[in-house]
Amino acid sequence: MNQKLSNLAELYKNTLLDNIIPFWSQHSIDWENGGYFTCLDRKGNIYDTDKFIWLQNRQVWTYSMLYNRLEPRKEWLNIAQNGAEFLAKYGRDTEGNWYFALDRTGQPLVQPYNIFSDCFAAMAFSQYALASEDESAKEIALQAYNNVLRRQDNPKGHYNKAYPGTRSLKSLAVPMILANLSLEMDWLLQSSQLEAVLDQTLQEVMEDFLDPDRGLMYENVTPEGKHWDCFDGRLINPGHGIEAMWFVMDIANRRQDRSLINQAVDVVLNILNFGWDTEYQGIYYFMDAQGHPPQQLEWNQKLWWVHLETLVALLMGFNLTGRQECLDWFQKVHDYTWGHFSDSNYQEWFGYLDRKGEVVLNLKGGKWKGCFHVPRALYLCWQQLETLNSTLK
Amino acid sequence: MNQKLSNLAELYKNTLLDNIIPFWSQHSIDWENGGYFTCLDRKGNIYDTDKFIWLQNRQVWTYSMLYNRLEPRKEWLNIAQNGAEFLAKYGRDTEGNWYFALDRTGQPLVQPYNIFSDCFAAMAFSQYALASEDESAKEIALQAYNNVLRRQDNPKGHYNKAYPGTRSLKSLAVPMILANLSLEMDWLLQSSQLEAVLDQTLQEVMEDFLDPDRGLMYENVTPEGKHWDCFDGRLINPGHGIEAMWFVMDIANRRQDRSLINQAVDVVLNILNFGWDTEYQGIYYFMDAQGHPPQQLEWNQKLWWVHLETLVALLMGFNLTGRQECLDWFQKVHDYTWGHFSDSNYQEWFGYLDRKGEVVLNLKGGKWKGCFHVPRALYLCWQQLETLNSTLK
Repeated sequence: MNQKLSNLAELYKNTLLDNIIPFWSQHSIDWENGGYFTCLDRKGNIYDTDKFIWLQNRQVWTYSMLYNRLEPRKEWLNIAQNGAEFLAKYGRDTEGNWYFALDRTGQPLVQPYNIFSDCFAAMAFSQYALASEDESAKEIALQAYNNVLRRQDNPKGHYNKAYPGTRSLKSLAVPMILANLSLEMDWLLQSSQLEAVLDQTLQEVMEDFLDPDRGLMYENVTPEGKHWDCFDGRLINPGHGIEAMWFVMDIANRRQDRSLINQAVDVVLNILNFGWDTEYQGIYYFMDAQGHPPQQLEWNQKLWWVHLETLVALLMGFNLTGRQECLDWFQKVHDYTWGHFSDSNYQEWFGYLDRKGEVVLNLKGGKWKGCFHVPRALYLCWQQLETLNSTLK
Repeated sequence: MNQKLSNLAELYKNTLLDNIIPFWSQHSIDWENGGYFTCLDRKGNIYDTDKFIWLQNRQVWTYSMLYNRLEPRKEWLNIAQNGAEFLAKYGRDTEGNWYFALDRTGQPLVQPYNIFSDCFAAMAFSQYALASEDESAKEIALQAYNNVLRRQDNPKGHYNKAYPGTRSLKSLAVPMILANLSLEMDWLLQSSQLEAVLDQTLQEVMEDFLDPDRGLMYENVTPEGKHWDCFDGRLINPGHGIEAMWFVMDIANRRQDRSLINQAVDVVLNILNFGWDTEYQGIYYFMDAQGHPPQQLEWNQKLWWVHLETLVALLMGFNLTGRQECLDWFQKVHDYTWGHFSDSNYQEWFGYLDRKGEVVLNLKGGKWKGCFHVPRALYLCWQQLETLNSTLK
């Protein structure tokens, strides 16, 4: 087992450094206009030049994070800077809200309707500020973070189509991302502010969104944490719930809260038992809590990030609790993930498979898949495997 | 051939009257609150009670249309009335704009962000006014029609997320639905108004959205009818383009414009050659004009309405031009459609298949599939087959 885990650490590390990162460094950088091309086909050819703010910021984060945590390579900082300067110049409206999309040259295409554009900007500029020691990056990070706090109760503003009062629902995505973001920014936040945000998000996620009877994480609940029997109210997004649980483990570990760690691991295992496709393997994208047809036509597809976030959660869960179920599931999800998403002919990974595991979209990057989930998960799994190896020695 | 077509006319007629309509009459009527349940599982059990305005109005239209054109059955008028009265009472905001969704009792859930809610209201209340001879229904139809005309240049109002000026695109759906709607309402409109709207929509559809070189219908073009090289600008929705072409044939036939009829048939055949899945059969849902990965994850699914609208277009095209290609394609699409969407164990049809033809969502009705495309297409195909039979006799 020890030998095997050591090989696995090498596999995750080498894939990150020799396959994934070189793919993005080589194909995605727009040295002319700044920013990144994320719409890349199987071989890395650019098929669309629009710049989606989520992915632009996430790529700044990835390169800055590698520079900060792994090795201060000048090349990585240059690439992060190429995105950060483009985004600082073009990414926000006059009120400091982050657009959703820009064209290649930086002209705005889609209005700032989406709070997660600000979330990923805060994440990106916080990491980049650490890497570059640039004071203005720090300010941009804090401004974006304050946008998120200000907008969290009405994330879509006047773009919200829900009629007020008939059926109030809040979304798991908001507290979940806030938890992860606040930990990311701990070096920039006052300790009391950070702890208050963490308290609030833990309470919301583990009491309002977690169904105590079923141990499942719901995507949408009432402000009081109750269920609505409607499409949105019945929605389960297994990958999202599992990702939220490793954010929770991260916070719980920081607070040395063993009980919360164990609870988060329980939820991961419950979601996996619920969301695993026993016929064709892999984890479903969307499910209905009551087994009704979901409204998402792509519900039974297998997505790269769902599986990668699950690998992170399982390794973290095993490292923190030693529970064998985590390792058993890790092996199963690892085999599926490496067997289906990694591309044996070209660099980077496929993102979208049908239920049976065949490629649905023959791309390595697009509007939603960029330089983020694959490198982040490979990095985190590699680190977890190293920790595990050193424990077992 | 003559015998075969006569059998086919019976098949379409009997399926409509003995299978499809009884399914909706039996399972979908909310006699308690008014309106219809459209979320029905494979056997007709209700799994969700929300009321989506598109589908509510479409069901009023279907039952009114059957009453008007087929047979004045009291039962059909009662069912139409049960929806129309619910919608007249709860469907609109104080300014007369149609909401997108209501709950079971009629309380608004989703704001009037969508111009097609008004379109389908106009269609529904126009047919219902003919059936019921109710003056207030006529007024509701005209009010909705005027909403559509007023909103056509800015269909989403303040819900529009596009940043103004960077990349203006207009959508095929607006002129296309306006053409069909205006013909539906010809008895309520002044002839000069009707002809002016038809002129405008024909010009837009056949000059701006139709690419003359490729003979393909694009979903989104610039206000001047040019292409943008972006996801929306490259989008082809084969079923939508084909449906638009039978609307055009309808207008061209009314105007006895042989050249326009032939052009519309050419486009149908071009789209079919482009959108047909030669490996697994069936017509793709979304495609990229340049062969790049589309942004829609469900792009390679096979949807019921796409195939049914195609059957209507092909029979209409054959009746109007006698072109053999129409009949050859009709046979091929007919075989696929009846072989995959119709359910040999229970009433009504499946709506959503994966690329290989397996059922993705095991439902007969949902948020988008209601009592509309199946009955309308079966009715129209039956009528076309009758016409064809009488011509061949």
